[in-house]
Amino acid sequence: MKKKKENIDYALYLCTDRGLMSTDTVEEAVRQAALGGVTMVQLREKDCSAKEFYETALCVKKITDQFQIPLIINDRVDIALAVGADGVHVGQSDLPASEARRLLGPDKIVGVSARNVEQAKKAAADGADYLGVGAMFATGTKQDAKVTSREELCRIRAAVELPIVAIGGIKKDNILQLEGTGINGVAVVSAIIAAPDIKAAATELAERVKELREQ
Amino acid sequence: MKKKKENIDYALYLCTDRGLMSTDTVEEAVRQAALGGVTMVQLREKDCSAKEFYETALCVKKITDQFQIPLIINDRVDIALAVGADGVHVGQSDLPASEARRLLGPDKIVGVSARNVEQAKKAAADGADYLGVGAMFATGTKQDAKVTSREELCRIRAAVELPIVAIGGIKKDNILQLEGTGINGVAVVSAIIAAPDIKAAATELAERVKELREQ
Repeated sequence: MKKKKENIDYALYLCTDRGLMSTDTVEEAVRQAALGGVTMVQLREKDCSAKEFYETALCVKKITDQFQIPLIINDRVDIALAVGADGVHVGQSDLPASEARRLLGPDKIVGVSARNVEQAKKAAADGADYLGVGAMFATGTKQDAKVTSREELCRIRAAVELPIVAIGGIKKDNILQLEGTGINGVAVVSAIIAAPDIKAAATELAERVKELREQ
Repeated sequence: MKKKKENIDYALYLCTDRGLMSTDTVEEAVRQAALGGVTMVQLREKDCSAKEFYETALCVKKITDQFQIPLIINDRVDIALAVGADGVHVGQSDLPASEARRLLGPDKIVGVSARNVEQAKKAAADGADYLGVGAMFATGTKQDAKVTSREELCRIRAAVELPIVAIGGIKKDNILQLEGTGINGVAVVSAIIAAPDIKAAATELAERVKELREQ
C-alpha cells in the first residue's frame, strides 16, 4: 500500500469468497475487480487451510500492490503479518480488535464488524480504523447474518467518527437505498465476485458509489 | 513457562480436543492432566471461533503457568502471540514453520508435524524446535491421518537431531511398542482427555513413558 491510513478510499471494498467466484483463481478475480475500480480488497477465506490462505494472500498481494490498493486479511492476524498485508478485518467472533491492534502496531489497518451502536463504540475504543456495518440487506453469503436497519446505521454514523463501510446483500439495484446515511463506502462479495464479468460489475458499482457519495 | 527451550521435557504432551473431553471445560481437563503429570500442553481447537480459542487459551495459560509447563497453540500464531503462549505447533497444512518462526522470534517454541524424513528435514531447516511424528497408530481423533511406520519413525530419528514426540492413537496398551525408537516423548489426545479420570490416566501414561525412556 502506498497510501497512508488517513488517505484510504473505502468507496468500493471487495471481499473475496472462493466458493462464489466466476473465475478460476482468487488472484484473477481480484485483478479483474481492481481493473473495474475496487478501492480495497479483503481476503476472506473460511473454507481453506491456513497454508492455502497464506499462499493465496501472497499471490493477491502482488495484484493489490500493483494497483496500489490496500489488502486486508480476514481474521488471521498472523497471516496478515506473514504476507505484509495492510491490515486485518475482525468480526465479533474473531480475535478481539484490541489484540489485533496490539499485534499489528499503530500503522496497520484494523477493521471491525459492528451491527449496532454498542459494538461500534467498543470497536472505536479498541482502536479500529473503520467499521463494517451490516448486514444491510438479506444476503446469501452469510446466511446467519442479522439485518441492520437503516435507522441503526444512521445511529452508528452519529455515534462514531470512524469511516463506515456498509456490507451485506448490497448490489447495483439496492445500493442507492443507502443514500443519506453518511457511509464512506460499500463492501460487496457476490455482486462483484460472482458476476460473469467481474470488471464490468465493479465498474458499474463504482459509478453508483460515486453517485451515492455525491448526494 | 519458566524453563528455557533447551530444558523442555517432552515426555507426556497433552493435545486438547473439546469434542472429546470428559470434563465441562478445557481448563479443568488441563488442570487434571497437569496434576497427573503431563509435561506440556497443546491447545488444539479446530471447531470454535477465534474469539473462543483466544479466551480458552487465556484461561488455560493460567493453569500451565501454575504448573510451570509450556503451553503450545495449534496453528494460530496470532493467538499464541496474543496470550503470550510458549509457542505454536504447525501441521503441513498450516502457516509455514519458517513464517511461524519469523513471527514468534527465536525464543518461542515452534513444533512441526512430520510423517516422513523429507518433512522432518524441511522442518529442521525451517527452524523447528521439535517434531510431532505420526500418526503412529490408527486414531479416531484425526480420521484422515496416515499411519507412520515404526521404520519411518526410526529413519526420522536418524535423520534429525530435534526432539521427537510420537503422536496418533497412543495409549497405555500400545505405548511400549515405541520402545527403542529414541523418541523423547509421546503426545496424546483421547487417552487422557476422554478418560473418565483424567488425572489417573495421565499418571499411568507418565509412568509408562518413564519406562519407555529408560529402555
